[in-house]
Amino acid sequence: MNKPTRHSDLTLPKVTTGALPASRKVYSAPDGFPALQVPLREIALSEKANEPAVRVYDSSGPYTDASAAIDVARGLPRHREAWVRTRAVETYDGREVKPEDNGNVSGARVARDFPNKPKPFRALSSSPDPMGRAAPLTQLEFARAGIITEEMAYVAHRENIGRAAMLDRAQAALDDGEGFGAEIPPFITPEFVRSEIARGRAIIPANINHGELEPMILGRNFLVKINANIGNSAVTSSVEEEVEKMVWAIRWGADTVMDLSTGRNIHTTREWILRNSPVPIGTVPIYQALEKVGGDPVKLDWEVYKDTLIEQCEQGVDYFTIHAGVRLRYVPLTASRVTGIVSRGGSIMAKWCLAHHRESFLYERFDEICDLMRRYDVSFSLGDGLRPGSIADANDRAQFAELETLGELTKIAWDKGCQVMIEGPGHVPMHKVKVNVEKQLRECGEAPFYTLGPLVTDIAPGYDHITSGIGAAMIGWFGTAMLCYVTPKEHLGLPNRDDVKTGVITYKIAAHAADLAKGHPAAQLRDDALSRARFEFRWEDQFNLSLDPDTARLFHDETLPKDAHKVAHFCSMCGPKFCSMEITQQVRDYAARLNEAAVELAEQTTQVDPRTDAGDAAARQAGMDEMSAKFREMGGQVYIDEEKATKRQS
Amino acid sequence: MNKPTRHSDLTLPKVTTGALPASRKVYSAPDGFPALQVPLREIALSEKANEPAVRVYDSSGPYTDASAAIDVARGLPRHREAWVRTRAVETYDGREVKPEDNGNVSGARVARDFPNKPKPFRALSSSPDPMGRAAPLTQLEFARAGIITEEMAYVAHRENIGRAAMLDRAQAALDDGEGFGAEIPPFITPEFVRSEIARGRAIIPANINHGELEPMILGRNFLVKINANIGNSAVTSSVEEEVEKMVWAIRWGADTVMDLSTGRNIHTTREWILRNSPVPIGTVPIYQALEKVGGDPVKLDWEVYKDTLIEQCEQGVDYFTIHAGVRLRYVPLTASRVTGIVSRGGSIMAKWCLAHHRESFLYERFDEICDLMRRYDVSFSLGDGLRPGSIADANDRAQFAELETLGELTKIAWDKGCQVMIEGPGHVPMHKVKVNVEKQLRECGEAPFYTLGPLVTDIAPGYDHITSGIGAAMIGWFGTAMLCYVTPKEHLGLPNRDDVKTGVITYKIAAHAADLAKGHPAAQLRDDALSRARFEFRWEDQFNLSLDPDTARLFHDETLPKDAHKVAHFCSMCGPKFCSMEITQQVRDYAARLNEAAVELAEQTTQVDPRTDAGDAAARQAGMDEMSAKFREMGGQVYIDEEKATKRQS
Repeated sequence: MNKPTRHSDLTLPKVTTGALPASRKVYSAPDGFPALQVPLREIALSEKANEPAVRVYDSSGPYTDASAAIDVARGLPRHREAWVRTRAVETYDGREVKPEDNGNVSGARVARDFPNKPKPFRALSSSPDPMGRAAPLTQLEFARAGIITEEMAYVAHRENIGRAAMLDRAQAALDDGEGFGAEIPPFITPEFVRSEIARGRAIIPANINHGELEPMILGRNFLVKINANIGNSAVTSSVEEEVEKMVWAIRWGADTVMDLSTGRNIHTTREWILRNSPVPIGTVPIYQALEKVGGDPVKLDWEVYKDTLIEQCEQGVDYFTIHAGVRLRYVPLTASRVTGIVSRGGSIMAKWCLAHHRESFLYERFDEICDLMRRYDVSFSLGDGLRPGSIADANDRAQFAELETLGELTKIAWDKGCQVMIEGPGHVPMHKVKVNVEKQLRECGEAPFYTLGPLVTDIAPGYDHITSGIGAAMIGWFGTAMLCYVTPKEHLGLPNRDDVKTGVITYKIAAHAADLAKGHPAAQLRDDALSRARFEFRWEDQFNLSLDPDTARLFHDETLPKDAHKVAHFCSMCGPKFCSMEITQQVRDYAARLNEAAVELAEQTTQVDPRTDAGDAAARQAGMDEMSAKFREMGGQVYIDEEKATKRQS
Repeated sequence: MNKPTRHSDLTLPKVTTGALPASRKVYSAPDGFPALQVPLREIALSEKANEPAVRVYDSSGPYTDASAAIDVARGLPRHREAWVRTRAVETYDGREVKPEDNGNVSGARVARDFPNKPKPFRALSSSPDPMGRAAPLTQLEFARAGIITEEMAYVAHRENIGRAAMLDRAQAALDDGEGFGAEIPPFITPEFVRSEIARGRAIIPANINHGELEPMILGRNFLVKINANIGNSAVTSSVEEEVEKMVWAIRWGADTVMDLSTGRNIHTTREWILRNSPVPIGTVPIYQALEKVGGDPVKLDWEVYKDTLIEQCEQGVDYFTIHAGVRLRYVPLTASRVTGIVSRGGSIMAKWCLAHHRESFLYERFDEICDLMRRYDVSFSLGDGLRPGSIADANDRAQFAELETLGELTKIAWDKGCQVMIEGPGHVPMHKVKVNVEKQLRECGEAPFYTLGPLVTDIAPGYDHITSGIGAAMIGWFGTAMLCYVTPKEHLGLPNRDDVKTGVITYKIAAHAADLAKGHPAAQLRDDALSRARFEFRWEDQFNLSLDPDTARLFHDETLPKDAHKVAHFCSMCGPKFCSMEITQQVRDYAARLNEAAVELAEQTTQVDPRTDAGDAAARQAGMDEMSAKFREMGGQVYIDEEKATKRQS
């Protein structure tokens, strides 16, 4: 099988590098883990702002670090290897790459191999027995054993960005929010991370063979995350494009990336992506398995599927979508749907079940799948193969029957030591969104929920990033841990670079809106900093603090292109003659004068000490009445609200 | 004052005409009103669909009627004039246009006058006294008098599009939805419209001088509507652009348009817009009043404001935003805000109040304003001058204090016979949206709510159509009657043609998502028709049924440009070799076979009549067991759900 492959003349993937405007990458170590270097992005403000730089969560990896040397053919540094080596693992030669792994591609179509493939790790042992008599390997096993891993310390520190500076107000922010039963602490300790993982309520998708990973956590008590899908297809796109799409997606904020490739060179494309990805990579292994059997679902079997799982485990894929909940008995439940089965994986398994008149081999072999994935700590993303593809089909029996089975499988995977999250819909009208979360949390023991949108109407192809962004914001608020993006091309075509960016930004909006509504401590810091910049006409700060500084600047310049306008105290909406922001300054001056008057009154009434001047109560009352009248004349009630008065300092 | 004006050489405004793809304009008359011609748009489906054409609400006016002759210099036909003439009105010469109405513009900058100005109507009398001893003029007065106007019959018929064909399922749709106290009937009768208007829960914004209007209704028990803002500013844009922006905005679905012009030629621009607008036009009269006093809020007074109201009443403006709730005593409440007062009207009035140390003349003269607006049936849109401009300021005391005053003013306006709606925020995080609606309904006696977004985060300038579309969908669901659009240029610059379209489509999504969630009968018909088209690979039908057929087609063709692909049974996501939709057909065939088996079983067990063959019960049981085993073999449970089985026929 070890035939020499001919390489095409394709050049190395070109990826986008460089810092975002006014930004620099900062690394810091959590207490007790001096070797960890947790990244964040620091956005500098203009001198006029007289405010510290704003620190934000940063999933973009070394590509936005001005000092990093990026060499795509070498891949990113494998910092995690050192952590993994200390665990109960072995290295081994691994499975040989076979021609069918790349779709039997030949000649000039063969993509260049990644030149620097690492040897895979795997767990030494099977999972610990109930007495814990084997070494832990997965994050779940470590958590249950009471051990805080490097990954746990890393994500705790990462989640706390901004919180350290506002610990005194964190609980107030939480109290102001609505978490629908979430239990978000004011500060994230490594121990909290451990306990959340131990009870299955959070996962750190982190294959031991993904040494390049900057760990992140998924769970309802952490920041809401987003996923971007990439992947070539039978119709179009190449290895180079996919690597750049990954880098591009994380530049704008994707927290994980799924490689959904279905065409040629799948194995090689994935290797390039993984070796250059600082974020978790997810796949749907059945896609590649299907390619290996020539595209005919009927020809699938356990052997080819298992072989594919091993192949991808060794490469370092962090989570697998596995549609093990599509049981034979549920397939007829979709017959009267308006849009049948729209999940690709769901359709494949439905077809297999029907053709063989047999229960799904994913369901029947689930124990074996767990044992395999556990050896590499690949997380389950239990797929919703029967998710609704239209408003008409939302929340139907097929969908919920599968969800109940996913709950059953969750418990099995947990018993096997595997981390689990659950995929969710899809197309759901607004009033049916919440019950999806409630049922998922109940059926699946609060395992993290990972939804696609949902789209809240079907009538806007071309705008499904928006139809789904609405549902995503809501379902994130209700308790979903990760939102899978939808691009404007959904239902119509393959997303290009601009579509990927639009999808990512839209989902960053949805995730952040959810964090705000849940009362996440520190979530509002960026809103407030941007709003102050807006109010004070610090245009550059407003651009730089935004999710997409380039677009904000471009839009501004379309109307007012002159540089002078970026420091001017007006904007194109009202023009130079009139400005509501300027008037507000006068309001503040006025209120300040009112407050001075209040202080004066307070002093006057204090001077009249009732104990030493008891006989003069009437005169004192007259003085107060006079001041009150003056107040009313100046604008009625004097409003001194301590909470609000201190807000601007926050 | 009657100086001859020099006209510039500007050509006539060019506007976009022509039907939308596969669409034709249909007019129909409600029962009992044979003279009314209520428009709708009918979208033809391909022959393959074997489904009737889909009828949708259509606010685009004659511009999308292929048979209409559009002459912008003549304006649209004034069908409503005949209705108004039968009422207690008089025509009169009206106020003369003054140079300051157009910003004292001179020379080549003078825009061409609209050549065909109608004479204004006004009510003969003041409003009816408590004994009803004067003729009704406003829709509210007619409604209270028990009279169904042409406008009421018109909007009832318009709201019912699609419902006639599904009356048997309308209540089920309503029961499936969640209306938060809305009382949507299965079918809208003119009497229901009358009763909703009489109790102030709905309005028909319809100045008696807007003869070109195709009436529409706003209220929580009707379809959610959207508004698009246009208007030139001191910095940019012209009369021609604004007229086309109006036509363009309604082409994509704007239900009303606000002309927020602030620069030169305001009067003339508005005349052109009104004479060519089939939708209600709203304005903020203080903007023009401010221009008349040279842009200095301090110089405003009641006389110049009143003069502006009369000017605009005579032109036919349908609703006025009036910031009469910005009371002097509330101004200091904004002093500690992060973004102060961001409403332009609110800032103007705040500045006036502070400069004069006096209560707002809008508040003090509210009775007179009512008397004036009542004579033309101009609806109030009570402005939220103290709405929050940032997440930090949402739901604060300033905002709610003003809302309470708006409630007080609502009752005054109602007593005067005026129709009223209430404006709302702004910037509000998701968890604080609902209380806005609840408080508004309570304080303002369920008068229709009309909100700007709200934006659910501040961090995405350039994408505020999306940040606000999320809030708009939610607040629409909770009970808001109309959603004021936000374009991608919000906070950054003036929207161009593309921005207007993007804003309108985004808000059509939000409004429709709200209708779906409320369980509006017939709302889901379009979703279902589009989903069926999607499922059956009727690409052309999918494009034509979408909110923006041009973009849907363009996006599809970017990946698969060949015409053949539009009839192909696959799409670019999966390619020709594999298709999940095709597999679903196999599922259906399978389920059909299962059902046949069920029928066979039913027939067998029926043949065995227990009364004539009582001794053979054991054999009968054995036969049933055999069939059951066969079922299990074929896929377990047979699922026959009557409700779902009939769904595809809907």
